[in-house]
Amino acid sequence: MIPEWNDYLLAQAFLVAQRSPDKQTKCGCVIANKKHQIMGQGYNGFPRGVNDSVLPNKRPDKYPWMIHAEVNAILNCIHKPEDCVAYITTNPCFNCTLLMWQAGIKDIVFATNLQHKPSMLHDDKYADLMEEFIQLSNVNIKEHDVNLNFLAFKVDDWRLGDI
Amino acid sequence: MIPEWNDYLLAQAFLVAQRSPDKQTKCGCVIANKKHQIMGQGYNGFPRGVNDSVLPNKRPDKYPWMIHAEVNAILNCIHKPEDCVAYITTNPCFNCTLLMWQAGIKDIVFATNLQHKPSMLHDDKYADLMEEFIQLSNVNIKEHDVNLNFLAFKVDDWRLGDI
Amino acid sequence: MIPEWNDYLLAQAFLVAQRSPDKQTKCGCVIANKKHQIMGQGYNGFPRGVNDSVLPNKRPDKYPWMIHAEVNAILNCIHKPEDCVAYITTNPCFNCTLLMWQAGIKDIVFATNLQHKPSMLHDDKYADLMEEFIQLSNVNIKEHDVNLNFLAFKVDDWRLGDI
Amino acid sequence: MIPEWNDYLLAQAFLVAQRSPDKQTKCGCVIANKKHQIMGQGYNGFPRGVNDSVLPNKRPDKYPWMIHAEVNAILNCIHKPEDCVAYITTNPCFNCTLLMWQAGIKDIVFATNLQHKPSMLHDDKYADLMEEFIQLSNVNIKEHDVNLNFLAFKVDDWRLGDI
Amino acid sequence: MIPEWNDYLLAQAFLVAQRSPDKQTKCGCVIANKKHQIMGQGYNGFPRGVNDSVLPNKRPDKYPWMIHAEVNAILNCIHKPEDCVAYITTNPCFNCTLLMWQAGIKDIVFATNLQHKPSMLHDDKYADLMEEFIQLSNVNIKEHDVNLNFLAFKVDDWRLGDI
Amino acid sequence: MIPEWNDYLLAQAFLVAQRSPDKQTKCGCVIANKKHQIMGQGYNGFPRGVNDSVLPNKRPDKYPWMIHAEVNAILNCIHKPEDCVAYITTNPCFNCTLLMWQAGIKDIVFATNLQHKPSMLHDDKYADLMEEFIQLSNVNIKEHDVNLNFLAFKVDDWRLGDI
Repeated sequence: MIPEWNDYLLAQAFLVAQRSPDKQTKCGCVIANKKHQIMGQGYNGFPRGVNDSVLPNKRPDKYPWMIHAEVNAILNCIHKPEDCVAYITTNPCFNCTLLMWQAGIKDIVFATNLQHKPSMLHDDKYADLMEEFIQLSNVNIKEHDVNLNFLAFKVDDWRLGDI
Repeated sequence: MIPEWNDYLLAQAFLVAQRSPDKQTKCGCVIANKKHQIMGQGYNGFPRGVNDSVLPNKRPDKYPWMIHAEVNAILNCIHKPEDCVAYITTNPCFNCTLLMWQAGIKDIVFATNLQHKPSMLHDDKYADLMEEFIQLSNVNIKEHDVNLNFLAFKVDDWRLGDI
Repeated sequence: MIPEWNDYLLAQAFLVAQRSPDKQTKCGCVIANKKHQIMGQGYNGFPRGVNDSVLPNKRPDKYPWMIHAEVNAILNCIHKPEDCVAYITTNPCFNCTLLMWQAGIKDIVFATNLQHKPSMLHDDKYADLMEEFIQLSNVNIKEHDVNLNFLAFKVDDWRLGDI
Repeated sequence: MIPEWNDYLLAQAFLVAQRSPDKQTKCGCVIANKKHQIMGQGYNGFPRGVNDSVLPNKRPDKYPWMIHAEVNAILNCIHKPEDCVAYITTNPCFNCTLLMWQAGIKDIVFATNLQHKPSMLHDDKYADLMEEFIQLSNVNIKEHDVNLNFLAFKVDDWRLGDI
Repeated sequence: MIPEWNDYLLAQAFLVAQRSPDKQTKCGCVIANKKHQIMGQGYNGFPRGVNDSVLPNKRPDKYPWMIHAEVNAILNCIHKPEDCVAYITTNPCFNCTLLMWQAGIKDIVFATNLQHKPSMLHDDKYADLMEEFIQLSNVNIKEHDVNLNFLAFKVDDWRLGDI
Repeated sequence: MIPEWNDYLLAQAFLVAQRSPDKQTKCGCVIANKKHQIMGQGYNGFPRGVNDSVLPNKRPDKYPWMIHAEVNAILNCIHKPEDCVAYITTNPCFNCTLLMWQAGIKDIVFATNLQHKPSMLHDDKYADLMEEFIQLSNVNIKEHDVNLNFLAFKVDDWRLGDI
């Protein structure tokens, strides 16, 4: 079976997330245009080109240093991501939601959190702000119950050499 | 006298700042390439296209809603601002500094704060983080004692019609 | 008060004009797209990269050497200025009007001439040609009674440090 | 462990390959610039926007209809792929190699064929042509013994929710 | 008389064809947007930057080495040729037709073959595939009975110096 | 024989010139980058999209209305013609030379005037200004004794069908 676009692009985001140097949370974001062409990708990480071995890699000290996947994806875009869709491995924080909106992204798809772990960035205040922004902007944020089975099975197939 | 580039581009940033809807602080940022061509501009403001009359316009409630001038300038850039210079009406916060760096901006010029008022965003922790980042990245942040006299005098001239 | 777009972009043009090396007339032109993002700027000046100290800086000898603000603004545009608007500190000459039109600019806004001085470039023949071209092309040329007060007052505020 | 770039970008190519409608061979190609930013992707498939249910999906009748992954990746590139690198799930045919070269791609990385099955497109004549072209052009074609373990294991982790 | 666009752009294609190193067949292709601005040009030739003096220049050995004019024109395009028109000196082969389609070209104009010589690339199987593709895709392929008289006469005029 | 680049690109310029509506002088200009890819073309003509049947088509009344080939070529360029070369059917006037320079064109090639007719635009004052500008700027203006034989002969061949 050919994976549908949401599963396919979220799988890409999960793949991108593998590049994250963050030892606690690996996030990935893929920004694609309406033809599903990838315009930019990003993962959460330290400032680029910097010797990050001396920087804190644990909560909460890492927070000011860690640039979110969505921000990196926006900044990596080859063109301005106007009218593009962001595919994220987890639900975005409020600040990233504003930045994506400001960059012209009006559609966001994130994978159902498979880990069922609450995030420090998603407290009650966050929920209120998000609710208010969604009301005001009509930004379209969709949770997608991602199906990655095609990926796991295919990897075995690739290794066994039978596709 | 023809204004020198730093004065000229900071004057542009002060001009952009006038567009800010923030009643307490008006910041402006101009991003220019090495030929001094403007690539993007921004001022601090609410998310675009949103009815912001219902949003808080006072400290500290406005903080999560207010997008900084530097971020808007980056997102407004016509091309990726790789190797460009940012001109800002005041010293940037730590988060904006990281974002500018991540966007490829390695040179930042800001106007000497004419108001001598401390900012809530520039506390001691901020100073330590900035210091550490400057050490690690060699980002070039320069305070410029901006001369806006050419602007004030000229405005009178324009009105009197004698240039 | 936040300046309206016409005042704001004409103020930018007046600011650009300050860079002109012409000792008799300083013109500025800002080309912006329909979202008010600046695409290019220019001032009247000599050919770039040339030792212009030996060139004539007085009327009428300077005429063949002096490239108009509008032409420089068009040539400085980061992208083709198709469907953009030109904001000019004074009324454009006939030749610049044709060039802007040919570059895809169908809307021109110029500041009311504050100096009430006739220009050698705007004689009777000029008026006839302009009239005929406007009839034929429906180019939209608008004189705007620019309000620069916001700029003058703000400059004082910046210096006094109270905005 | 963070996957190295060759493994990471080939994993992307394997992911892209999943979108191929070809029931016998699924190929994927990712074109990235020297900063590892993705410029274009493609998989082998029928002409776009065409009702391909009536087209032959078996060897050899499918051959004239099936556009190779590399060609689609080149045509999907957001910018011209000058000086980019192509990452392919299998060794390219001679014609695609010429087209990539002609498009400005001088570096090609392909995954070791895990299936050990000869391809009809890679006969003796092919080998001679490739050999001659490599001699003449110094195109850099590298076989990479791809390690996809990180992908398979991580997929389980994602499902179990423990990364 | 001013030549009409089809004649004019096909004349350009014939001009481009003169650059072909192929001693048996010289093809040219010009890709223009709907405003008749040229986006790319190509002629049939060997891989670029390669010492092609050692390569076969006769049928059929040259076939795998010779890159068609249409492919070179697509790869030379300054921007992606989405919704552009291809002007070709002769009828395209099936493979080039697919590639042009895949590149977003839905309109093809080719000059009536003035030589009345059958091509090895245009056998019966080719005709069937073309027929089927045209049915499926509605690609618009138009034969144009090119009038090059304006070119021949004008060349004499240029030499005699009387235009 | 394959025409050399100067002949080939000037032949393109002569071809473009055929599109000019000017009944007295038909000029053409082709701007190409250093890889000889065409970036823009132009011919002398009236403002675009205008009913020019009512405009004067004779010297000297046509002068203010007629936009030169070089200007149209610059404004038609798909990208800014920085470091490109202009190929012109005749020697450029002083104003166009400045505009090309200002647009970043430092190399100009024009065809030897085959008509040996003086132009009203090339009087003594013109010659002095050109001389002075060439001294100051080191712009590279080259007259090329264009060989169009390949074109005339080939046109016959095309018609006879024997290339």
